[in-house]
Amino acid sequence: MFKAPDSPYLVPYDGSFKVADAATAAAAKGRRYKGEYRRHLREEMKRLQRILAAGDRRALLLVFQAMDAAGKDGTIRAVMQGVDPSGCQVHSFKRPSDLELDHDFLWRTSCRLPERGRIGIFNRSQYEEVLVVRVHPKILASQKLPGEIDLDTIWDDRLRSISEQEAHLARNGTIILKFWLNVSKDEQKKRFLARLNDPTKNWKYEPADVRERRYWDAYMQAYEQALNATSRPWAPWYAIPADDKKYMRARVAEIINQTLESIGLRYPEPTAADRKEFAESRAELEGDSAA
Amino acid sequence: MFKAPDSPYLVPYDGSFKVADAATAAAAKGRRYKGEYRRHLREEMKRLQRILAAGDRRALLLVFQAMDAAGKDGTIRAVMQGVDPSGCQVHSFKRPSDLELDHDFLWRTSCRLPERGRIGIFNRSQYEEVLVVRVHPKILASQKLPGEIDLDTIWDDRLRSISEQEAHLARNGTIILKFWLNVSKDEQKKRFLARLNDPTKNWKYEPADVRERRYWDAYMQAYEQALNATSRPWAPWYAIPADDKKYMRARVAEIINQTLESIGLRYPEPTAADRKEFAESRAELEGDSAA
Repeated sequence: MFKAPDSPYLVPYDGSFKVADAATAAAAKGRRYKGEYRRHLREEMKRLQRILAAGDRRALLLVFQAMDAAGKDGTIRAVMQGVDPSGCQVHSFKRPSDLELDHDFLWRTSCRLPERGRIGIFNRSQYEEVLVVRVHPKILASQKLPGEIDLDTIWDDRLRSISEQEAHLARNGTIILKFWLNVSKDEQKKRFLARLNDPTKNWKYEPADVRERRYWDAYMQAYEQALNATSRPWAPWYAIPADDKKYMRARVAEIINQTLESIGLRYPEPTAADRKEFAESRAELEGDSAA
Repeated sequence: MFKAPDSPYLVPYDGSFKVADAATAAAAKGRRYKGEYRRHLREEMKRLQRILAAGDRRALLLVFQAMDAAGKDGTIRAVMQGVDPSGCQVHSFKRPSDLELDHDFLWRTSCRLPERGRIGIFNRSQYEEVLVVRVHPKILASQKLPGEIDLDTIWDDRLRSISEQEAHLARNGTIILKFWLNVSKDEQKKRFLARLNDPTKNWKYEPADVRERRYWDAYMQAYEQALNATSRPWAPWYAIPADDKKYMRARVAEIINQTLESIGLRYPEPTAADRKEFAESRAELEGDSAA
């Protein structure tokens, strides 16, 4: 069975995680994602993904959440590079469409879950419903929820819905890893200023991002509550220090590879009936005089 | 909030339901679905569905399960006739496709859940996974489940997944009614013989149906377990006597109408801002000399 890889960044399952104590900077030990090591991690992931696809039994779901400029897009690009694109699907979830708002809040991510044999990546996810919406509860007014909205219970109810669905998916063959890329407020400021000052980075800058920064503390509280409520052995959260991108990418890639290694993937073995058919096919091919 | 309509056929929420004690024949009281009464029930449903659509807040999900020849298709056709087809969607779930088998067993029905304002009907449903598959556990071999399959836990796990999803949907605005059309073994025999003997009904006959009849007792046990595990105030089961089709249809239509009546549907009220805009539009239209 799947066992969450050990890591100093694994969010414990007992609700004791504190954002205030979570590292945003690289620890002294731990290799960076570059050169030989990067090639090694990529080759390993490529090899494991091929066996995952051949086995066609399990799916791997990777959820990425973070504050703006923490490096979600770059991490997904860097870490998944080299993996066969036919075995991998990335969905970015932005503001919900009218059709999506016409459904319960898990619907749009549920329909995009990865198939058996594939790696599915959620760039933002159903967790936005307990992060940005929790920080800005006025968004609820646009969600067409029935009856009175009870702010005392809605977040726990949503976290329960998310967690119960993850348990269901785990029981049915989906391995779930969740990464919170934990950037410091100072580092975010530097990156925003770089976007403003460097003409090649201007395109990344959005005034709304700086407005959201004003709600930093509320976001940290929402992350702490969400991670504590939903980090479980079958769907662990990792709070990865994000101030050093190369360090962060290496930790994410290692955890993915260790996970795929731990679940005993192997190419499907031919059965006795398969072997018999193979022998017949071999005989037919060898006797084919047209070749 | 939604309250399941009272009915002698409501499956209690405490696990005490016994198939052996459940009526398959019409009770003496209770009108049949014909003439004036049918027109009344249809008009009522049509009216309520229009308000449901206008409100655009809640969805209604109707799940139909039954043994073969109990009358699922005919009941859906008869009861929903007259409802605006734009506000209503029927999905029949048959043998899962390869794509569907590549997902967890709730995926295919989840993606087809009704949108807010609509009535969604499942002709067979996710419950097949704890009915036909439970009666024929060899089907599990085709489901590409990971690891060893544990027959001691899989059915309870599946029922838990189904029930937890229903609770989530109910919290988020979907009203769920589930109907088990409870036909007797004798009545099924008569209907199969009619299909065999009446040339206009031959097209309905499938040899597989009679093969499934051999597993009657196992099916009854699976229904009893499923209904007890998942009949809850927010997603009740009704075990409707199905030997008399007109009686059955009337009970199903009544329960749907009573449900829609009980949830306080009303046309959305214009806000003060709406009213101001209405006044402006009215003034503009009245001053329009081109008319």
